[in-house]
Amino acid sequence: MDYAAADAYLTKNRERHLGELQDFLRIPSVSALPAHRPDIARASEWLAERLRATGVPEVRIMPTSGSPVVYGDWPARPGAPTILLYGHYDVQPVDPVALWQTPPFEPAIRDGRLVARGASDDKGSLFIPLLALEALRAVAGGPQLNLKFLFEGEEETGSPNLAPFLHEHRALLAADVTVSADGGQWDAETPSLALGNRGLTGLQIDMRGAATDLHSGTYGGAVANPLHAMAALLAGMHDADGRVAVSGFYDAVRELSAAERRELARVPFDEAALRKELGIAQFAGEPGYTPLERTWIRPTLEVNGMWGGFQGDGSKTVLPNEAHAKITCRLVPDQDPDQIAQAVEQHVRRHTPAGVTVTVTRGKGKARPYLMPAEHPSLAAATKALRAVYGKDPVRVRVGGTLPVSDLVKRELGTWLVFFAFGEPDNLVHAPNEFLRLQTFDRGTRAYVRFFDELGRADAASLRP
Amino acid sequence: MDYAAADAYLTKNRERHLGELQDFLRIPSVSALPAHRPDIARASEWLAERLRATGVPEVRIMPTSGSPVVYGDWPARPGAPTILLYGHYDVQPVDPVALWQTPPFEPAIRDGRLVARGASDDKGSLFIPLLALEALRAVAGGPQLNLKFLFEGEEETGSPNLAPFLHEHRALLAADVTVSADGGQWDAETPSLALGNRGLTGLQIDMRGAATDLHSGTYGGAVANPLHAMAALLAGMHDADGRVAVSGFYDAVRELSAAERRELARVPFDEAALRKELGIAQFAGEPGYTPLERTWIRPTLEVNGMWGGFQGDGSKTVLPNEAHAKITCRLVPDQDPDQIAQAVEQHVRRHTPAGVTVTVTRGKGKARPYLMPAEHPSLAAATKALRAVYGKDPVRVRVGGTLPVSDLVKRELGTWLVFFAFGEPDNLVHAPNEFLRLQTFDRGTRAYVRFFDELGRADAASLRP
Repeated sequence: MDYAAADAYLTKNRERHLGELQDFLRIPSVSALPAHRPDIARASEWLAERLRATGVPEVRIMPTSGSPVVYGDWPARPGAPTILLYGHYDVQPVDPVALWQTPPFEPAIRDGRLVARGASDDKGSLFIPLLALEALRAVAGGPQLNLKFLFEGEEETGSPNLAPFLHEHRALLAADVTVSADGGQWDAETPSLALGNRGLTGLQIDMRGAATDLHSGTYGGAVANPLHAMAALLAGMHDADGRVAVSGFYDAVRELSAAERRELARVPFDEAALRKELGIAQFAGEPGYTPLERTWIRPTLEVNGMWGGFQGDGSKTVLPNEAHAKITCRLVPDQDPDQIAQAVEQHVRRHTPAGVTVTVTRGKGKARPYLMPAEHPSLAAATKALRAVYGKDPVRVRVGGTLPVSDLVKRELGTWLVFFAFGEPDNLVHAPNEFLRLQTFDRGTRAYVRFFDELGRADAASLRP
Repeated sequence: MDYAAADAYLTKNRERHLGELQDFLRIPSVSALPAHRPDIARASEWLAERLRATGVPEVRIMPTSGSPVVYGDWPARPGAPTILLYGHYDVQPVDPVALWQTPPFEPAIRDGRLVARGASDDKGSLFIPLLALEALRAVAGGPQLNLKFLFEGEEETGSPNLAPFLHEHRALLAADVTVSADGGQWDAETPSLALGNRGLTGLQIDMRGAATDLHSGTYGGAVANPLHAMAALLAGMHDADGRVAVSGFYDAVRELSAAERRELARVPFDEAALRKELGIAQFAGEPGYTPLERTWIRPTLEVNGMWGGFQGDGSKTVLPNEAHAKITCRLVPDQDPDQIAQAVEQHVRRHTPAGVTVTVTRGKGKARPYLMPAEHPSLAAATKALRAVYGKDPVRVRVGGTLPVSDLVKRELGTWLVFFAFGEPDNLVHAPNEFLRLQTFDRGTRAYVRFFDELGRADAASLRP
């Protein structure tokens, strides 16, 4: 495979490619706002057309009960691995629009950056592999693997229809591995591979004391105060060191080997800079782990909200009769969302002080933690591709947040999902003045040429779980 | 003194007296609502005129920066004790007005009850001693003591101008003892004397973590969560038994003797009925004390409000950067509001977990606890009067709430304040369908005849602190 020829093709066609991406970005495909439903349709049509232009023989716009899915099938070489490429063509709303230096849907190139809503997340990012495929087709007759495409239009509203869609069309979408073009790099100069992300489970705790709010003078001291009870309950969920004190919470947690922890420690993490950015004097958390390890490989129990009684100005001498809290836990392998929710619920029931009644309601959002095998061939292929373009090996990272698509694909389609994408942490995604560096755009297309080429040489069976 | 003649006078004139009270109640003197300022003026004029009609030689309507004070001076017998009679002619708002069975300012007599806003609190209650004085004048030429009158028109809005008024006019208001016609009885059949009330001090705690709310996935586990810190701080303010765990909190608390506690235990307290009314399965609080003792003679630290993070429907995976709490303490002799606020503040500073910063703001409202000497001659006089009318001794109680007027009078005028009043706990004061039992109205006027008469025989110096 002549990479130089592919690179030259990309260089030669760069202006046209950037122009096409700007056309794509001009379509305000905001999935959260019903007024933009026609734009969602337009964006799906634009993308379907662009797939056809790239050479994908079968392209379909498939309805869901929300935004349609753009599906494509390009069976290039029998016996080669089959790759399912995932991305999304919808974007976040643009408010506060007044903070944009140029209108969000009028793409602008400034200081080596393409600025527009969706430039990074995810229109620019999903366009990158399409250009790599165009280049591969131009210089080598096409990619040496079988490709399927799955571009959804509801990622920014939580992908409500993705699970049923995958379930219904699992045969159509069958592949050896899924590649996500939605994801990111450590920073503009440091390529990275995210091997996993944390899972999620949540619940709400509602406590009740007397039948009504009471006068704190008349009854204070003799009737249980649910705010005291809630404070005691929540305080008891962590020990003095910051470890979660819920019985059984850590039972299923997979400990990392020293080598794995050394690997994670390779990332160029500027602790002082982050402290400054966050406005904190020190990091906190579980003893024995670095700040990155605490967010990547350790589970958490976080109170997201807590309230009860009087919140106005001044003072109200009330003995409130209700207290509330919302909790989510971030989970790591091999914690199970239901088992952890159960453990927290049991903790609540065991430790609710006398004098109040308690109700626990499980949250709707839950997700299993996700972790790829470190030795998966797609990671080796990705490493080689990134090293060639960036001149250095990618660092291997985890994602502290929850990316439900990874576990969803694993469960519904039975493939690993590898993130091969080029978003940078400072891209202002979901915020005004979202951008993508043109240098990263160029590196991305060249990296994808190499990644697809490397993947084409992999043994299909070795990619499957 | 011929009590039978006074009682006969009251019986004979009862219809006229009730009619006059209904005239007074027809004036909607709601101090909280600016639209009723003319009614406040009318009520003050009505009351001044009624004092004159009772025989008070000097009556003045004295302006304040809010509602005027109705002042009167009736120097009846040189050398006799001088009594300052306190009450208030303003009333609470009437909302929700739809819940009134008859209009709040159209007094109605139903089932032996006078129903109207202010029937109990405090127009009906302050009218009772005026009728007793009228009766004493009719049958004995007047009371055998020197009387001063202090009727304010802002009690229902927290008496904002009372302290400066007392301070400015302390010479004019000089007396041996102050009697409050604003107060109550244990229940309709059980007379009581309130010897004291709890004081108050308060503060707000504001905690801050990172510069902004953070993503609980990206940073959860590595950055301190102010909600966890606040829960731990608040939980640490009580020990597992329910005692306040703030260092020095109980240092100044006066312990009661076994005899004093037996005296308090005489009240006919129906614990089961109150539990049912409050909707609680059990009382809570400090071990070693009864529910009544916990609200009367023990101090409290009560969280009145606590909040931070997400409170909406569903879930938000936020690591909040703020947490807030409002606290008030009820104080008993000889706790000092400033010292206790200082102790709580020190506790906060000592026990705020690392990773968050904390600000403590003292509340504006503070009041010293109040307690009369059990052997004060006014209490003996009151006991005799109540026993004669009710056929049994009054029980001696405390008030768990804070009645700032008592400590205010003590400090500004240098007299004890004795509550001699007839509100019943079920009178629906501050609520729709406020009422006063006619039987209590009758008992009150007769009890005041005897109380004034007894007080007239007391040694003036013995009444002074």
